[in-house]
Amino acid sequence: MKPFSGVFTPIITPFRGDGAIDEAGMRRNVARWMTMPLTGLVVLEADRVIDIVRSEVPRDRPLIAGTGRESTTATIAATRRAAAAGVDAVLVRTPSFFKSQMTAEVFVRHYTEVADASPVPVLLYNVTMFTGVTLPADAVATLASHPNIVGMKESGSDIGLISEYIARTPDDFTVLAGSAATLFHALCADCDGAVLALAALVPREIVGMQALLEEGRLDDARTLQRRLMPLARSVGALYGVPGLKAALELMGFAAGPPRPPLRPVSPQTIDLLRAQLDALGVLEKV
Amino acid sequence: MKPFSGVFTPIITPFRGDGAIDEAGMRRNVARWMTMPLTGLVVLEADRVIDIVRSEVPRDRPLIAGTGRESTTATIAATRRAAAAGVDAVLVRTPSFFKSQMTAEVFVRHYTEVADASPVPVLLYNVTMFTGVTLPADAVATLASHPNIVGMKESGSDIGLISEYIARTPDDFTVLAGSAATLFHALCADCDGAVLALAALVPREIVGMQALLEEGRLDDARTLQRRLMPLARSVGALYGVPGLKAALELMGFAAGPPRPPLRPVSPQTIDLLRAQLDALGVLEKV
Amino acid sequence: MKPFSGVFTPIITPFRGDGAIDEAGMRRNVARWMTMPLTGLVVLEADRVIDIVRSEVPRDRPLIAGTGRESTTATIAATRRAAAAGVDAVLVRTPSFFKSQMTAEVFVRHYTEVADASPVPVLLYNVTMFTGVTLPADAVATLASHPNIVGMKESGSDIGLISEYIARTPDDFTVLAGSAATLFHALCADCDGAVLALAALVPREIVGMQALLEEGRLDDARTLQRRLMPLARSVGALYGVPGLKAALELMGFAAGPPRPPLRPVSPQTIDLLRAQLDALGVLEKV
Amino acid sequence: MKPFSGVFTPIITPFRGDGAIDEAGMRRNVARWMTMPLTGLVVLEADRVIDIVRSEVPRDRPLIAGTGRESTTATIAATRRAAAAGVDAVLVRTPSFFKSQMTAEVFVRHYTEVADASPVPVLLYNVTMFTGVTLPADAVATLASHPNIVGMKESGSDIGLISEYIARTPDDFTVLAGSAATLFHALCADCDGAVLALAALVPREIVGMQALLEEGRLDDARTLQRRLMPLARSVGALYGVPGLKAALELMGFAAGPPRPPLRPVSPQTIDLLRAQLDALGVLEKV
Repeated sequence: MKPFSGVFTPIITPFRGDGAIDEAGMRRNVARWMTMPLTGLVVLEADRVIDIVRSEVPRDRPLIAGTGRESTTATIAATRRAAAAGVDAVLVRTPSFFKSQMTAEVFVRHYTEVADASPVPVLLYNVTMFTGVTLPADAVATLASHPNIVGMKESGSDIGLISEYIARTPDDFTVLAGSAATLFHALCADCDGAVLALAALVPREIVGMQALLEEGRLDDARTLQRRLMPLARSVGALYGVPGLKAALELMGFAAGPPRPPLRPVSPQTIDLLRAQLDALGVLEKV
Repeated sequence: MKPFSGVFTPIITPFRGDGAIDEAGMRRNVARWMTMPLTGLVVLEADRVIDIVRSEVPRDRPLIAGTGRESTTATIAATRRAAAAGVDAVLVRTPSFFKSQMTAEVFVRHYTEVADASPVPVLLYNVTMFTGVTLPADAVATLASHPNIVGMKESGSDIGLISEYIARTPDDFTVLAGSAATLFHALCADCDGAVLALAALVPREIVGMQALLEEGRLDDARTLQRRLMPLARSVGALYGVPGLKAALELMGFAAGPPRPPLRPVSPQTIDLLRAQLDALGVLEKV
Repeated sequence: MKPFSGVFTPIITPFRGDGAIDEAGMRRNVARWMTMPLTGLVVLEADRVIDIVRSEVPRDRPLIAGTGRESTTATIAATRRAAAAGVDAVLVRTPSFFKSQMTAEVFVRHYTEVADASPVPVLLYNVTMFTGVTLPADAVATLASHPNIVGMKESGSDIGLISEYIARTPDDFTVLAGSAATLFHALCADCDGAVLALAALVPREIVGMQALLEEGRLDDARTLQRRLMPLARSVGALYGVPGLKAALELMGFAAGPPRPPLRPVSPQTIDLLRAQLDALGVLEKV
Repeated sequence: MKPFSGVFTPIITPFRGDGAIDEAGMRRNVARWMTMPLTGLVVLEADRVIDIVRSEVPRDRPLIAGTGRESTTATIAATRRAAAAGVDAVLVRTPSFFKSQMTAEVFVRHYTEVADASPVPVLLYNVTMFTGVTLPADAVATLASHPNIVGMKESGSDIGLISEYIARTPDDFTVLAGSAATLFHALCADCDGAVLALAALVPREIVGMQALLEEGRLDDARTLQRRLMPLARSVGALYGVPGLKAALELMGFAAGPPRPPLRPVSPQTIDLLRAQLDALGVLEKV
């Protein structure tokens, strides 16, 4: 079994009306996710959130923290703090601000220094949609030989790039998909799992798709993907974090409002999300 | 069996040193492809070429002609001429010159008029890489209900778009892949076959990948895709038509030089292509 | 005075209801443009149209024909036919179909062979918006030293690229702007004139802007550009050729309908165009 | 005189070898810039840096702080801290992380809330190159009517967009250019000044270009732009912050190394920068 393969969900931070973190709600959310067939969780937030989440995630369930920053020094500091707080691995997004300077060489040096300094295993994280830069396959191939770099997450839907990452890394290097809308395709391409916001809502379905493909049941897996598409779009590009938060609330999770300038989705969108969740049979009956 | 499903190759036109079409060479090429497990051929060239090819392709093997032009009138005229020359279907690329005017409505009207006038079935053809426009899935969904529009070719590697075309068209609407570098993924997405220049070189392998996936042998199909990748890249984005022509010559086909301003590949590239063909075991032994 | 500097308009081909070219209308259009302060005309159409237009354009007014094709051979043939029909120069758009093969080297070879063979001076033509390729400034710098390549048209609005073309070519190399929406900026950047569809409607204003800038009246020229913007957008990206044809008809030119799949603009758009022309004071009073 | 028109430079933070801020060096830098014809300075760094800089910038020279964050709440907090530290205005980059949610409406709400809460005037800041989002001209037109939003910085080189920002805002709304490579064009378009890293090196030349254009000396201003281009490219896209830091060191400023993962430029690049500075006559003689 590859390290950190499986299905993870990045967890949102619930806020109360006054803007403070809803700690009790977050604990309840995490406890509930721990009853589900998720492999583990990813926290992207600040140190305090990591502490809360770690205290709710059993030691045998992997907890990963996002610790990427623009500077190498700040990334290493965040990584050490997360490791001290007990996370099992860190997920380090590419630096990206000075795009024209982000060469393969710069990425290799950055990740090598972070991995050298990190007390826990490092997962690379490419998310071109948000950063505007792409981790070259050459750099990934080089970095995959570092003993403390054990895998990566690729958030995009470029199936050629995903395939190249997989083809150019060793068998024990984990590649996780990050796009729910192309999950089926990424798993066909041999991804070892996924980190998906959608998995916070329908973990059984995501884990189930991986199982179907392992059995060679291509048609059934493809059909499942099509069933998931409306919700995947809603909590993805269409309504983003506000859509995800609204769907979580409908499922009984604590989510609260999105942080401004994002604002809550409309009542019509909530109705749509309810219908989409209901069509997947995941809304609890009253 | 869906109409025009299967594996097709678009055929290049061989030129002699003086720039004239090498008719004898073209006849030999076609005759040889007819001994291979290709479903049929696609000709993109002018009327004379269609005549030559048709005379070499048995009536029970489908011959498709590319007849898309910028104007609807010119497209219909080319379509009628191709039908009169005996082609079994036409493949009609999107008009694209006035990009900002190419709305879903314009595409629907264009293809509807062409399909109304065409004596043979019509296949839509989206090739964003060359045209800079994309046939919206909405337009494809509408056009798929026209009785004379039986399918489409999508040349790109955007697996999300390919999946949407398939999801939004009836079961008997054929979707053919056009990108060799993402063939495996397109077939996983449920494409009904492919139109690939690569199939002129390695038809057994392309047909074989489709067969592996029908048997649910995902790993074997993926491995085959990886074996094909170097050659797929060489005759695709890397060396283009000059690369394809050189590879065909190495295989004993008549190809001749590319048309200027394209120029023949270098001797080093020919060596690379030879090694790639040899690695696939398709070079004939002397 | 640089060769082919000044203000040109590419002329549309008027069609009758039955799809045939309205030759009489075209002659009247050309004769009327010849009464205006336009430097000359550009014809992009087939051989017959060049003949008609040449017969109406006095020998001392430059007539330029667009003769670019995908292949070098076809471009040379079209160029020779246009020269034989009496055009004063040819405007040769970049080949573009096989985008990944369109290197600076390929462009230099293509244009050099065309210029070597052309009986009349050659103008390069970069139109990235339609072709998806860009003529590199390096290639332009090299080609500008060819004795039969006297200038270029750049259709885009990338002011950095326009400036680089100008900075890297000799003083007697003509650079013409092709984007009405950024005409003021292109003239500030030192373009030697323009080839604009808008100039078919408001030639005095286009010529006038060039004059204002030559006098250093930056504010007045900028104000004029703002006045022209609504119409520039309407006959540009917004309504394209259909918008241009409608505006020409409103001005009393023969234009006819656009070729399908393009269709005529709506009555509301015609009203808008009339108001925009009227605001510029160019609609004749009844 | 419009508020905050003129020539500003964003100042880099000098680091010592051990990674700490070189406070003494920063004070010397600021004091030296204050002897130059710069209008004022922009600080993008954390609170401590603002304190240092403010203490060196006379009250009658404007100091602007960059305080944009992803969340509205964090932006307001940073803005209040900067105002408390004595800055004269804040420059607030667009939030950008959740790109598909960044609608005109979201931008308007974000900036309105920030401007309502800010004790000092607010300048909008669009920097598509780094953020991947673009502030729509519609949103700018709306925001320009807020009494506490006095202008904006546009960092790009899209001259059409810059012109639209200017055309759609009141006469007393300041638009500052942010691209040195297209400064001449932006000033022709009627920008009221610029915020340029290049101005830290050659302030007299930047201020001089603005003066030339105010006198209608278009040719001289264009010639000056061409002279500045090599250095503008070097400290811009080509070598970025490492290039800028090296150039500052050559000029005798304290700059120190860039923060990893960026690394210092090569000795060859230092030689190139020296030659470019020398060509502009701004290197002090020994």
